[in-house]
Amino acid sequence: MIVIVKPEATEKQIAHIVEKAEKLGLKAHISRGVERTIIGFIGPEDVLRVIPLEVFPGVERVIPVLSPYKLVSREFRREGSIVKIRNRLEVGGKKLIIMAGPCSVESLDSLLSVAKKIKAAGATVLRGGAFKPRTSPYDFQGLGEEGLKYMKQVGKECDLATVSEVMDPRDVELMDRYVDIFQIGARNMQNFSLLKEVGMTQKPVLLKRGLSATINDLLMSAEYILAKGNFNVMLCERGIRTFETATRNTLDINAVPVVKQKSHLPMIVDPSHGTGRWGLVGSIAKAAVAAGCDGLMIEVHENPEEAFSDGAQSLVPENFSELVGQLKKVALAVEREI
Amino acid sequence: MIVIVKPEATEKQIAHIVEKAEKLGLKAHISRGVERTIIGFIGPEDVLRVIPLEVFPGVERVIPVLSPYKLVSREFRREGSIVKIRNRLEVGGKKLIIMAGPCSVESLDSLLSVAKKIKAAGATVLRGGAFKPRTSPYDFQGLGEEGLKYMKQVGKECDLATVSEVMDPRDVELMDRYVDIFQIGARNMQNFSLLKEVGMTQKPVLLKRGLSATINDLLMSAEYILAKGNFNVMLCERGIRTFETATRNTLDINAVPVVKQKSHLPMIVDPSHGTGRWGLVGSIAKAAVAAGCDGLMIEVHENPEEAFSDGAQSLVPENFSELVGQLKKVALAVEREI
Amino acid sequence: MIVIVKPEATEKQIAHIVEKAEKLGLKAHISRGVERTIIGFIGPEDVLRVIPLEVFPGVERVIPVLSPYKLVSREFRREGSIVKIRNRLEVGGKKLIIMAGPCSVESLDSLLSVAKKIKAAGATVLRGGAFKPRTSPYDFQGLGEEGLKYMKQVGKECDLATVSEVMDPRDVELMDRYVDIFQIGARNMQNFSLLKEVGMTQKPVLLKRGLSATINDLLMSAEYILAKGNFNVMLCERGIRTFETATRNTLDINAVPVVKQKSHLPMIVDPSHGTGRWGLVGSIAKAAVAAGCDGLMIEVHENPEEAFSDGAQSLVPENFSELVGQLKKVALAVEREI
Amino acid sequence: MIVIVKPEATEKQIAHIVEKAEKLGLKAHISRGVERTIIGFIGPEDVLRVIPLEVFPGVERVIPVLSPYKLVSREFRREGSIVKIRNRLEVGGKKLIIMAGPCSVESLDSLLSVAKKIKAAGATVLRGGAFKPRTSPYDFQGLGEEGLKYMKQVGKECDLATVSEVMDPRDVELMDRYVDIFQIGARNMQNFSLLKEVGMTQKPVLLKRGLSATINDLLMSAEYILAKGNFNVMLCERGIRTFETATRNTLDINAVPVVKQKSHLPMIVDPSHGTGRWGLVGSIAKAAVAAGCDGLMIEVHENPEEAFSDGAQSLVPENFSELVGQLKKVALAVEREI
Repeated sequence: MIVIVKPEATEKQIAHIVEKAEKLGLKAHISRGVERTIIGFIGPEDVLRVIPLEVFPGVERVIPVLSPYKLVSREFRREGSIVKIRNRLEVGGKKLIIMAGPCSVESLDSLLSVAKKIKAAGATVLRGGAFKPRTSPYDFQGLGEEGLKYMKQVGKECDLATVSEVMDPRDVELMDRYVDIFQIGARNMQNFSLLKEVGMTQKPVLLKRGLSATINDLLMSAEYILAKGNFNVMLCERGIRTFETATRNTLDINAVPVVKQKSHLPMIVDPSHGTGRWGLVGSIAKAAVAAGCDGLMIEVHENPEEAFSDGAQSLVPENFSELVGQLKKVALAVEREI
Repeated sequence: MIVIVKPEATEKQIAHIVEKAEKLGLKAHISRGVERTIIGFIGPEDVLRVIPLEVFPGVERVIPVLSPYKLVSREFRREGSIVKIRNRLEVGGKKLIIMAGPCSVESLDSLLSVAKKIKAAGATVLRGGAFKPRTSPYDFQGLGEEGLKYMKQVGKECDLATVSEVMDPRDVELMDRYVDIFQIGARNMQNFSLLKEVGMTQKPVLLKRGLSATINDLLMSAEYILAKGNFNVMLCERGIRTFETATRNTLDINAVPVVKQKSHLPMIVDPSHGTGRWGLVGSIAKAAVAAGCDGLMIEVHENPEEAFSDGAQSLVPENFSELVGQLKKVALAVEREI
Repeated sequence: MIVIVKPEATEKQIAHIVEKAEKLGLKAHISRGVERTIIGFIGPEDVLRVIPLEVFPGVERVIPVLSPYKLVSREFRREGSIVKIRNRLEVGGKKLIIMAGPCSVESLDSLLSVAKKIKAAGATVLRGGAFKPRTSPYDFQGLGEEGLKYMKQVGKECDLATVSEVMDPRDVELMDRYVDIFQIGARNMQNFSLLKEVGMTQKPVLLKRGLSATINDLLMSAEYILAKGNFNVMLCERGIRTFETATRNTLDINAVPVVKQKSHLPMIVDPSHGTGRWGLVGSIAKAAVAAGCDGLMIEVHENPEEAFSDGAQSLVPENFSELVGQLKKVALAVEREI
Repeated sequence: MIVIVKPEATEKQIAHIVEKAEKLGLKAHISRGVERTIIGFIGPEDVLRVIPLEVFPGVERVIPVLSPYKLVSREFRREGSIVKIRNRLEVGGKKLIIMAGPCSVESLDSLLSVAKKIKAAGATVLRGGAFKPRTSPYDFQGLGEEGLKYMKQVGKECDLATVSEVMDPRDVELMDRYVDIFQIGARNMQNFSLLKEVGMTQKPVLLKRGLSATINDLLMSAEYILAKGNFNVMLCERGIRTFETATRNTLDINAVPVVKQKSHLPMIVDPSHGTGRWGLVGSIAKAAVAAGCDGLMIEVHENPEEAFSDGAQSLVPENFSELVGQLKKVALAVEREI
């Protein structure tokens, strides 16, 4: 922690700051410059972080030196983590994972049909929402447990792992019985009750970045899950909210290498939400692979015209299959595999 | 709903779109221009909103005509709503409401002490967090039910209504017993499970705008609560996330008159979170009153240096008291009262 | 300047950084912590700012201690500056300045007619664009020198000072002959050639904040003008670009007290561009006065339906006159005058 | 143009709007719905775009149907444009172009030395700034004409085309004699005087997207250049300003396929400014190629520690050379070439 002192600060004020820190077991180094004095604090920064040093008389600015996250950081674990799904699939290694399927589970038949096609195209995880976070209370809210049952049945029948969004801490136990991966959606990235709840399981979690979450915020939310004992976390870039209106969101491609530098956790990219338009999904999926992501999540629907949600950003299975073929080439070009 | 057709769209494609809409009971008006054809759909737009018209062949753009919210809109209720708190306080009328208190409840003594001072200064609602949404799992998470008990006791002793944040749908029942107003925080603005849960009570709700929520998003989240039957909702502007780093958030002052035009619900402003620095709170509180808000929520702490959270943005009681005096003058200048 | 050293940095790397700084006349203070070493540099930070310390081996992060601006800062001049216009009007004192008029100068008659009305309502500066920065090359680009002549003539006839936008360094000399205040528009806030050119005159400059400029960027652009010798600069908040689409821009009301804290320059607010809708202008103008601005710039047009540009955000003279009456009350409430 | 009428609008108001449009030669189609009436206008939308229909009594919202740009659109020219540089290099075809070099021209020797290395690595265009747009007036402002001379000499000696930023319309003629491509920087994207000036030459222009410019804004600025007769325009994504602080800017990768869909102009990506950190440049350069860009602009410096500007984001020649090798593989994977 570094404290920059106001030019007009008195010696007494400086002494007051130092004294406070020393009581907490920190050591202060004072550097007196011509225009500003700065104080560096050495020791466990955590104890200091909870003190609002900004309001101490004489303080101009406070600058933390260390990252506030621990368990998710590269410093904590130098090697990239491998998240295992059903003890069979691995995420974070040389091979990329492809998650695909409809935005919402709509019926058993339609789910089974699309699942077969995405499996044939090369996907290994089936996505499908049973509880849907919709901006409007009047929009389709998902099939609930019925949808989860379909997910489980189709996953088994097609030998696909499954991922579905959990929105309510009260549903964690229920969903745990049906799906292989918990998805925490963008709107719930800072739903701390929910994070703690999935943190108390050992099931893999796909944590999506919030619309206005910085990369640091995303890592802090993951920290909540790891701090509860669940290290099986995958992060997911799915676009942030900016002033640009030509796309639904702005996919922050920079987040891929930044997360890989800062954290050992695998990084998934969702080009469907990241663009909001199916005609852009292919380009951005290829970009994500080239940038070094560990997997993709792509919305696929057999008949987007009839989709209950997000039809505009869903690929039809034929386009998805063609895209996977292209992605394999891009993966090879960057020494990865699909 | 208006559909703009691509220049190269075929007659068959146009007929397909029209047919789809007519099946749903809508009537289509086609206008053929030199460069574009547009189709206007007349009828209940809601049924059409769930169809992803964007993906129909030949469609270039889809433009909704009606707002997606109903119950919260000015069209639904022309007169501004009055929210009653404990059948005594009214929010949304000529008189503005002042909510004040510490960010977190820290102890019974400190809460009682600050409550007496804010009461003397003119506040009528005591704020204080018992469950704290903290970015870091290692930061102070609140006193929980203990804190709620203090809130109730102090509220009673000082004759102040109380407001505290609810973060988990499982806590709604518990909190209902202790506080007079549920606060839904910015990070939970789209926690739809939580919105539905408080919607099933009749207790007043203070719904804070999310960091990246548009005004429409805020109104849609309020719609969730009203749709469940609870019309006692107050909205709260508390700053949005932008590129500006000089302040913690960017308080969107425009939101005050925009919300008052679009909705009948009362609009509260939180200049403490909206700026993040106590030295700015006074100016922005005055601005909010001048802009036409129905109340303010301000963080006050007797000793910000020792605050468990948000010390940097808390006023000391003396400054708060002085500020309320200034706010009264501004309120009079715009024909309101405090 | 503070340098945070990577945990794995070698002593040789640290020595290399220190050596570099000492060659430039700075003194280094090293604080060695358990997890990080930090180096504070004492001396003229400017010489160090041009060295890209971030790329030195072993460096994790570089943190400047001092603001990069000098002449515009409150530290340079404690008292607020008074900008004099035509040796008669003063901006930055107790009395607020009201600038009003059409977006574009359209004809001599219409300008004269509106000028008389804004004068009667209490404005002392006439605004009107002769060179218009339009997003589209096909939109009205302004009357050019003809428009400037009208501005001068009407200003004289109505005894109003005049302000008009300069977009091209080649026009500075020309405009100098016709108007009393140079306006630098948002899109040209970092047109450094233009800033230098107006910096070489002594004429007052109204510098508008760019759509994505931080407050620091705005101050740095003002620094360009002061550094050339022209201290007669007024800053102007006119809305920034965010994700919100309900308004044309998001007026950053926080910028008013922040600028007043950081700088001695007067701060003007433009609620017309800051909202983009005439129905919001009044609320935001009142908010700006309550927040502590030194003046307002408001678009007024006698017949917005026929305006060549920005009709949607223009007040009619009757509404403007009524608004000035309300603003006077708000100004008094915060111990200012209009 | 579509006009949505307020529910309370009178027949007279509707007639007034229609009459206005018909005077301008447009035809109005009225669709009366239960909740709203909408009016579609058929005819040359341009004449209507300058009328502020939003302020007509009874109007709720105005929605343009056509894009405001013409010459830059895919509809104007279905085939992608090929921009020729010195009648030898082509941009926009199967082969991607690599522009590389230092941020600023610093000396003849250093420029020559780095130029030889980027040429050997596979670049065909040398970048280097002679006029530098710096946020601070106290930072290095470039060598001016001296720098241009070095660019010309080194370009000739190494057989590299050259690109350098022009900031002032008065410098266009001068720069025209020295460099092969005009660069318009992000801060000048809406410097319309400058756009018009380069539009009056036939020299290729690299137009960088502004920090807060939408893709539409970028296309409109290009339209200014084409409208003056210069069709040799390349667009450049270089990152936009968002709330994320982990990177200097947020590179909007979505902009690559969006621009390729909307416009026939070539699209270049600058991963150096788009990230601001050399350690991220490689990943993002590969992503850009995979996404379908037509070329890259990358900062390369032999000794970033000593760079006069932007050292933190410059690659050393060895890393650049290695990166080009990787980019060739990615280009092949998406059926392009480097």
